[in-house]
Amino acid sequence: MTAPQQQPDTLFPRVSERYDDRARYPRGIAYTEGQYLPISEAKISILDWGFLHSDATYDTVHVWDGRFFRLDLHLDRFFSSVSRLRMRLSQSREEIAAVLSNCVALSGLRNAYVEMICTRGVSPTFSRDPRDAENRFLAFAVPFGSVANEAQMADGLHVIISDVQRIPPASVDPTIKNYHWLDLVEGVYQAFDRGGDTVLLRDQAGNIAEGPGFNVFAVKDGALTTPERGVLPGITRRTVFDLCARLSLKAEAAPLTERALRGADEVFVTSTAGGIMPVTRIDRAPVADGRVGPVTKRLSSLYWEMHSADEWSTPVRYPAQDKNDKRTETGGLSQ
Amino acid sequence: MTAPQQQPDTLFPRVSERYDDRARYPRGIAYTEGQYLPISEAKISILDWGFLHSDATYDTVHVWDGRFFRLDLHLDRFFSSVSRLRMRLSQSREEIAAVLSNCVALSGLRNAYVEMICTRGVSPTFSRDPRDAENRFLAFAVPFGSVANEAQMADGLHVIISDVQRIPPASVDPTIKNYHWLDLVEGVYQAFDRGGDTVLLRDQAGNIAEGPGFNVFAVKDGALTTPERGVLPGITRRTVFDLCARLSLKAEAAPLTERALRGADEVFVTSTAGGIMPVTRIDRAPVADGRVGPVTKRLSSLYWEMHSADEWSTPVRYPAQDKNDKRTETGGLSQ
Repeated sequence: MTAPQQQPDTLFPRVSERYDDRARYPRGIAYTEGQYLPISEAKISILDWGFLHSDATYDTVHVWDGRFFRLDLHLDRFFSSVSRLRMRLSQSREEIAAVLSNCVALSGLRNAYVEMICTRGVSPTFSRDPRDAENRFLAFAVPFGSVANEAQMADGLHVIISDVQRIPPASVDPTIKNYHWLDLVEGVYQAFDRGGDTVLLRDQAGNIAEGPGFNVFAVKDGALTTPERGVLPGITRRTVFDLCARLSLKAEAAPLTERALRGADEVFVTSTAGGIMPVTRIDRAPVADGRVGPVTKRLSSLYWEMHSADEWSTPVRYPAQDKNDKRTETGGLSQ
Repeated sequence: MTAPQQQPDTLFPRVSERYDDRARYPRGIAYTEGQYLPISEAKISILDWGFLHSDATYDTVHVWDGRFFRLDLHLDRFFSSVSRLRMRLSQSREEIAAVLSNCVALSGLRNAYVEMICTRGVSPTFSRDPRDAENRFLAFAVPFGSVANEAQMADGLHVIISDVQRIPPASVDPTIKNYHWLDLVEGVYQAFDRGGDTVLLRDQAGNIAEGPGFNVFAVKDGALTTPERGVLPGITRRTVFDLCARLSLKAEAAPLTERALRGADEVFVTSTAGGIMPVTRIDRAPVADGRVGPVTKRLSSLYWEMHSADEWSTPVRYPAQDKNDKRTETGGLSQ
């Protein structure tokens, strides 16, 4: 379109009938308001308060080798977050589980990152009263992504400790999974400025809190510590506690000082996006000998073994092979 | 659509080609990626980090009787916010001004609420690195809305002081206008629970900060005080300072205690959405005699007089009358 100010005074730009989005997207399938769509067609109104006020909650579950990992825990947390924001889902837990499975099945993805979202929605009059809005449920499945790439998984992440404070619980309850990430984004840019891969933010007391989408653990003399409050109680974090119980390793949620983190024998971060990921440098200084430690390695291998166990995972129901090929094409639509 | 789990095992839901949004919207016109659209068709990708991480900034200017009010100040603040989030706009200041004017003109609205938005955008690979995303500019014009309705403008708002803390500057810089509103939304629900119209949040020191989309002023013995830090430096707030200079009224930005607010002679809140709005009750107790005060009335009437002055406002260029009728129909599309 020619820029408005270049037009003769008597002419105004045309109003298009439909939004033509020219951006490129990853492969994937989304669900909204009863419709399954290629990711490239999955939109939300610019008037949705989930966008304009970040008045939304979400949860993320992953699929590995065709199986959801600990889906029940993610659904529990999602329903809890939704009700604590005083939102209502019109779908039952079973319906949402089916929607998530369908997003993965229709995308043909065997390893997927699956997100379920509830937004405050839109009020037809643009009323500022959140009670006037119609809450919306959305979901999507895209290829599995990780906080750490292959090299970082092998050699460990270089983490920077930022002076940006994580948004405190007194302002936004971190146990309600939310999209208030500007503090984390600023921290990530600080990390890049200082040559780091990612960042850890501190709480108001100056203790370590969390990073963009992950919790952190310090290992010292065989015992694990992860920050107690002011962080998202991650499902991978919880899984580490479950694994430590099996291995009779001492693990506790307690305040974690910067000094304790820097002096740890091993440090790793945990996220649905990547699992258990080693940290071998903090602000350029090596953690212990700067190599990925034995506890991190042991927990990480056990974590991935759990993905095939019925006790921890649920199979996705995929279409039959001939259908599956179609899905792949469908996925192709959203490139 | 029949719910997925009600389908025979061999069948999967169909993937639609386009998103069919059945929600109702106010009248208005939006702009994105070179296209002008009825609000009902104005969407953003669900993978845009402006939605998924609230990684976005915005500004809101209003049009009254066909004129933008202090547009330059809003554009200054918007460009400053964008650069401080390390985003880039592909449009010049003049192009953005033209887009905003076109949104209003094409909507046919004489009184409008006009929002300009820059989001981190989408990265084609869903990479978590914000540097991989393509920043997006959006804008829209909808009918003018106010924090206070007619009755509240006449009799004053009933404000509740919440125990939710406003997100602190150490986490998110409030001078970068942002969508991190979950603290404000929780506060608004607390206000409704207690019979209030809206809410004021406090800062970490326990002093008054701001409310959802507005600043607050206390008038005592003819002098005005508004919170100094931890708040958005609102354009209406600044306009109050300009008016006070004209009227030789003492006005300062300084810490405002809860006690000082409750003991004030007059209290009012300021927002682009409504201007200068009286507060006559705080937590059920009347402010002074519980009536709208003379300073509030004087400032409010001066504020609206400024809207027709060339010094403070800029005319929107509307299409000729016959075109204008078409626009009205266009607006009608987005009902």
